[in-house]
Amino acid sequence: MINTGIIGYGYWGPNILRNFYANEEINVKFVCDFATDRLALLKKNYPGITGTVNPDDILNNPEIDLVAIITPVFTHYELAKKALENGKHVFVEKPFTSTSQQAEELISLAEKKKRLIMIDHTFLFTGSVRKMKELIDNGSIGNLYYYDSVRINLGLFQHDVDVVWDLAAHDISIMNYLIPHKKPISINAYGADHFDRGLANIAYLFVKFDDHFIAHFHCNWLSPVKLRKTLVAGDKKMLVWDDLEESDKIKLFDKGVEVSTKEDIYSLLIKYRSGEMTTPLLENIEALKEETQYMVNCLLSDNLHPINDGKAGLDVVRILEASSKSIKHNGIEIKL
Amino acid sequence: MINTGIIGYGYWGPNILRNFYANEEINVKFVCDFATDRLALLKKNYPGITGTVNPDDILNNPEIDLVAIITPVFTHYELAKKALENGKHVFVEKPFTSTSQQAEELISLAEKKKRLIMIDHTFLFTGSVRKMKELIDNGSIGNLYYYDSVRINLGLFQHDVDVVWDLAAHDISIMNYLIPHKKPISINAYGADHFDRGLANIAYLFVKFDDHFIAHFHCNWLSPVKLRKTLVAGDKKMLVWDDLEESDKIKLFDKGVEVSTKEDIYSLLIKYRSGEMTTPLLENIEALKEETQYMVNCLLSDNLHPINDGKAGLDVVRILEASSKSIKHNGIEIKL
Amino acid sequence: MINTGIIGYGYWGPNILRNFYANEEINVKFVCDFATDRLALLKKNYPGITGTVNPDDILNNPEIDLVAIITPVFTHYELAKKALENGKHVFVEKPFTSTSQQAEELISLAEKKKRLIMIDHTFLFTGSVRKMKELIDNGSIGNLYYYDSVRINLGLFQHDVDVVWDLAAHDISIMNYLIPHKKPISINAYGADHFDRGLANIAYLFVKFDDHFIAHFHCNWLSPVKLRKTLVAGDKKMLVWDDLEESDKIKLFDKGVEVSTKEDIYSLLIKYRSGEMTTPLLENIEALKEETQYMVNCLLSDNLHPINDGKAGLDVVRILEASSKSIKHNGIEIKL
Amino acid sequence: MINTGIIGYGYWGPNILRNFYANEEINVKFVCDFATDRLALLKKNYPGITGTVNPDDILNNPEIDLVAIITPVFTHYELAKKALENGKHVFVEKPFTSTSQQAEELISLAEKKKRLIMIDHTFLFTGSVRKMKELIDNGSIGNLYYYDSVRINLGLFQHDVDVVWDLAAHDISIMNYLIPHKKPISINAYGADHFDRGLANIAYLFVKFDDHFIAHFHCNWLSPVKLRKTLVAGDKKMLVWDDLEESDKIKLFDKGVEVSTKEDIYSLLIKYRSGEMTTPLLENIEALKEETQYMVNCLLSDNLHPINDGKAGLDVVRILEASSKSIKHNGIEIKL
Repeated sequence: MINTGIIGYGYWGPNILRNFYANEEINVKFVCDFATDRLALLKKNYPGITGTVNPDDILNNPEIDLVAIITPVFTHYELAKKALENGKHVFVEKPFTSTSQQAEELISLAEKKKRLIMIDHTFLFTGSVRKMKELIDNGSIGNLYYYDSVRINLGLFQHDVDVVWDLAAHDISIMNYLIPHKKPISINAYGADHFDRGLANIAYLFVKFDDHFIAHFHCNWLSPVKLRKTLVAGDKKMLVWDDLEESDKIKLFDKGVEVSTKEDIYSLLIKYRSGEMTTPLLENIEALKEETQYMVNCLLSDNLHPINDGKAGLDVVRILEASSKSIKHNGIEIKL
Repeated sequence: MINTGIIGYGYWGPNILRNFYANEEINVKFVCDFATDRLALLKKNYPGITGTVNPDDILNNPEIDLVAIITPVFTHYELAKKALENGKHVFVEKPFTSTSQQAEELISLAEKKKRLIMIDHTFLFTGSVRKMKELIDNGSIGNLYYYDSVRINLGLFQHDVDVVWDLAAHDISIMNYLIPHKKPISINAYGADHFDRGLANIAYLFVKFDDHFIAHFHCNWLSPVKLRKTLVAGDKKMLVWDDLEESDKIKLFDKGVEVSTKEDIYSLLIKYRSGEMTTPLLENIEALKEETQYMVNCLLSDNLHPINDGKAGLDVVRILEASSKSIKHNGIEIKL
Repeated sequence: MINTGIIGYGYWGPNILRNFYANEEINVKFVCDFATDRLALLKKNYPGITGTVNPDDILNNPEIDLVAIITPVFTHYELAKKALENGKHVFVEKPFTSTSQQAEELISLAEKKKRLIMIDHTFLFTGSVRKMKELIDNGSIGNLYYYDSVRINLGLFQHDVDVVWDLAAHDISIMNYLIPHKKPISINAYGADHFDRGLANIAYLFVKFDDHFIAHFHCNWLSPVKLRKTLVAGDKKMLVWDDLEESDKIKLFDKGVEVSTKEDIYSLLIKYRSGEMTTPLLENIEALKEETQYMVNCLLSDNLHPINDGKAGLDVVRILEASSKSIKHNGIEIKL
Repeated sequence: MINTGIIGYGYWGPNILRNFYANEEINVKFVCDFATDRLALLKKNYPGITGTVNPDDILNNPEIDLVAIITPVFTHYELAKKALENGKHVFVEKPFTSTSQQAEELISLAEKKKRLIMIDHTFLFTGSVRKMKELIDNGSIGNLYYYDSVRINLGLFQHDVDVVWDLAAHDISIMNYLIPHKKPISINAYGADHFDRGLANIAYLFVKFDDHFIAHFHCNWLSPVKLRKTLVAGDKKMLVWDDLEESDKIKLFDKGVEVSTKEDIYSLLIKYRSGEMTTPLLENIEALKEETQYMVNCLLSDNLHPINDGKAGLDVVRILEASSKSIKHNGIEIKL
C-alpha cells in the first residue's frame, strides 16, 4: 500500500482524492487544507481520513510515501522540495512550477533522492490523446504540417497567473507528448490585459520549430462561446479533435494536397485531395483513474521516468515562461 | 444607362456580369477575357454582349462609362490606371492592388479625374455585416475588447499571392468597415510555406491598435475543415458570426465580465456574467445585387466616396502588405 | 429528520442515495439490494449506512418514515403497498406501476393512510422544463399547436418493458406537466419488435386531444445517433428543447404563421413570419437535488399532492399502457 | 436534337429550363406560362426561346418531341394525356398525378404510344441517394430494420395539397428507389389541420411492410427549425443522411446490436456494439443536370423504363393517396 497525503482540497483536490481513494494500492491517510469548511466537507464524505490545516503533518510524517500537491502553482516548489527532501514521491498539479529554474532544481533533487515526480497532465490519459498519439506514431498522419489549438471560454480570471498558464498549459503538455521528436526553438506571443491587472486574459502563442512545422495556441477567458478544438495536419491525413463533442471527438480526414512538379521548377502544381472522414473509436476511460493507476504502476515498478515526469513538466513551464515574457515585451521572439 | 465593360470572365466574372446584367441602370456592352472558351460560354449565355480578347476595346472605347476589373491582382494597377486616365469609373476586384503605392497613385488619379473607384468588398453588403455594423454603432456591444477571425479550409493554392491576400483580405475589409475609429498601429504575422513556393499557405496575423483593443486573423489553405467564424467582444455584449450557418449566422450573447474593486487596489474582482443569447434577424439580401445597386446610386448621385472606395481598398492593402513582410521577416513588428 | 430506507442500489439508486445523503433533513438509515457486491460498494462509500438484502428490514421498521423504491417497475406495486400499509411515505422510481389499476389502488391507499406518494419524474425539476412551463404558462407560446418529441439512441434492451415504458415515460410525464389543461383522448401507437421478444424496440406514439392540439413521440433503442429533441409550437412562438446541448438547451423562436381571411371563405391566406431567436437563461440546478428538497418540503408541510404525486404517475402509466396495447393490436385507437 | 417545350415557368420551371438549355442534345423551343411577367423574364434571359400563354402551342406542335410539365399537380393529368396522345414524351413534375387512377391511365397510354414518362424525382440523382443505394445494394447495411425520415420547416402552406403531398413525396420516392424489393402493405397516417382548410399542415405516416421492416415519415409546415434527416438502420450498419450538412451528408455507423441466445429461449441477450463512423465521399454532382442527361440517354436509347418512370410515379402517388385518406379517417389503416 502506498501511504499518501494530499495537500489542497479546493476545486480539483476532491477529484484527486476520489480517484486515489478508489485505487486499491493507495491508502490516503491525510488531507490538508487551510479552509476549515473544506475539512468539514472531507470529514462528512470520508470519515476515515484525517484532515489537517498543517502541511507539515504530511511532509514530516515518516509513514507517508507519496504527497499529492493540488495547490496554486506558486506554492508547488516549496511543498515539493520539502517532500522530496524528506524522501517522498510527489504528484504535482500542473503547471509544475512558477519558473523553469524551480523545475530544474526539483528534478535534480528527485534524481538524487531516487524519488518520482509526476505532473498531473491528465489529458495524456484520455482516449482522445491516446488515439492521436497512436495515429501520429503509426504514420497515419504522415509528416506533420502544423498543430493549431483553440481553448477559449468565458472563464474565471485567475489571480496569480495569466490565461496562458491556465489554459495553454493543457495544450502544450499534449503537443509535447504527441510530437516528442520535434524541437521547438522559439516563441512569439501576444495578448491583451483588458483590466490592467498585469496578466493577459487573451493570448495567441506562436511556436517555431527547427523545420517547417509550426504550432499556434489561442487561449482566451473572454469568449462568449466555449471551444476546445485542435487541428493536426500532415501530408497523409489531417485530424480535428473537438473535446466538446459527446461522442466522435476525433475526426480523421483523408484530405490533403498533392504536389506534382512539371518539367520546369516554376510549375509546381498543388491540387487538393478529398476523401472519406472517419471517427475512430476511442477507449472509454476515465482519465484520472487511468493516470492514478499509471502512477501506482510506476511506483511499484520503480519507474521514475513516466510520460508525465518532471522533465515533461519542465518542458511545459519553459514554453509558458517564454510566452509570458514575449507577451510582456510586445511579442518579441524568445528563444527556448 | 451606365455603359459598362467587364475585364475578366473567369471564376468571379460571371457573378459580376449576372448582377450587372440584371440591374436596370447598367448596360453591359463588352466582356473581355483572354480565354476563347470563356468567350464562347459568354456568347451562349449572353448573345447580346460583345466578347473580346483585347482589353483596349473597352479601355479606349469612348462609349464606356465604367470598367469592372475582375482579373488577378497583379494586373489591377495597369488596367485601372488606363481606365481612369481615359475618364472611366472603375470597379475593382479585391484586393485593390499589389502594393499600397499603386493604390495611392490610383486614388490620386481618380480624384484628379473626378472618377469613382469602388472595390469589390462584397461582404460589406451582406445582412450579417450590416447587422454587426448596426450592433457596434448603436452601442449594443459597448467598448470593444477584441476581433478574432478564423477563415480556413482546404483551399486552392494561388500562384501569385499568399494565403493572407486570398483569405484575410475579406476579414480585414470587414473589420476596417466595422470599426473605422480604431487605429491599427502595427502588424506581426507568422506563417509557413510548406511547399517552398515562397508564399505562405497558413498564416496568423496579430494587429495592435492604439488602445487595449487587439485583432487576430487565422487564415489557412491546409485545413481539413471549413471554418468562417468571427468573434467580436465588448464590455456590454459579445457576438459570434458564423458565416457557414444556414440561418442564425449571428449570435449575440449577453455575456461578459463584471469588474468590481474592493477598497485596496490588489482586490480587483472580476466575475463573469451570463445572460440570454439572441440571434438577430438579418436582412435577406443578395450581397452582390446590393453592392451593384449601391454602386449605381453612387454613380448617379456623383458620390465618389462610397464605403468601399479606393481608400478602403488601400487600408486593406496596407495591412496585407505589412503581413507578408512580417511573415518573410520571421514575425517582426511592421508599423503601419 | 426524515428517517429513510432505500430499496434498490443498482444503476439509479446511488444517485438517489447521494442526493438524499446530502440533504440535511434526510437521514438514510438503510439501503437494501439483493446483490451482495452492491452492498459491499455501499459499505465502502457510506460506512455509516446499514446494508441489507431483506426489504422487510425497511418496510417493517417502525423507525422508517420514508421508503424510496428504486427497483424494476414490476416490483413497485408490492413494495409500495406494504410501505403505505405500514404508514410510510413512498418515493417511487418511474414508471409508477405496471398497470393503471395498481396505481389507482396505491393512490387510494395513500389517501386513506394520509401518506405521500412521490414519483421520480426527475425532469420536472430541471431548468429546461421549468423554463418551458414558465413560457407556456405566461402565454409566450400562445395557443398550442403540437408537441413533438424524439428520444432515440442505441440503448439497452430492457428485459421486462418495451421501449415506450423506458423512453417515452420521460416525455409523457413532461408533457402532462406542461399542459395540464389539455385532455388526451386516445392513443395510436406503432412499433417493431425486430428480435421477436414480444417487446417493441422502436415505437411511434400519436396522442389525440379534445381540440386541434396533437402530440407525437418517437422512441427507439436502435438509433445510431442519440437525439433528445422536443418541439412545442404555438401561435405566438415556437420552442425547441435540445437536451444534449451543453448550454442553450432551449431555443425560443419568434416564428409562426399569420392567417388573414379575405372576403370569401376560400381565400384563407397563410403567410409565415420569421423573427429573432432567443435562448433564455436557464436555472443552473441539479434536478435530483431540487427534487429531493421539494420532497422534503412537501413532507414537512404535509403537502400530500406534489406536482409528481401518484396521480401524475397514474396519468403517465395510462398512456404507456394504452400505447403498448395499441402496438400489440396493430395500431388501433385506444381511448383513454 | 430533342425539340422540347416546357409548360410552367414559375418557381421550379427556371431550374428545369436552365438545365435543359445547358444540355447539348436538347433544343428548348417553347416555354408556356399564363403569367405574362414570367414570359417577360423569359424573354430577357433567353431571347431565343418563344414564350406563349397557350399550352396547345406546344402540345399540338408536330415539331415538339418532349413536353416538360412543371405545373401544379392537379393539371398534370390533362396536360400529360394530351401530350402522350399527340405522340410526345413527357417529363412531369412530382407528384405525378392527383390520383393513382390517373397515373395508371397515363402509363397505359404511354405504353400504347411507345412514349417515355419520366417523373422529376430529382433526389434520385443526388450523390447522397446514389451512395445510400450503393451501401444498401452491396450489403453494407445488412438486413434492414427501419427507415425514418423527418422533413420539417416553416413552409409555404400549399393551396391545393396537404403537407404529405408537398414534403413526404420526396422521401417516399427515395425510399421506394432504395428498397425496391420491400413491399409496403398498409398506411396509417395522422395529421392536424390547424387552420380548418381541409388540408393537414403536419402529418406522421407509418408504413407497414410484409416483414419486420417499418417506415415512418414526419412532415410539417409549422416547425421553427428546418430538418432534413433520414435514418436507415440494418443489422450490419446504420446510416444517417442529413441533407442540410454542407459536406459529410451521410454518416455511416458501424453500430448495432448483437443477439446471442443462451440455452433456454427466455435468455435472449441483446448487447449493443459501437464502432467507427465514416462519412463516405459523395459524387459531387448537380442532381438536375444528371437527371437531364439521364433522360436524354433514355430517349436516345429508346429506354422507356427509367428508374423514375410512370410506375415509380404511381407508387409514390398510391402512398400519398392512402395517407391523405387515412388522415381524413382518423388514422385508420389503408391497405395498399
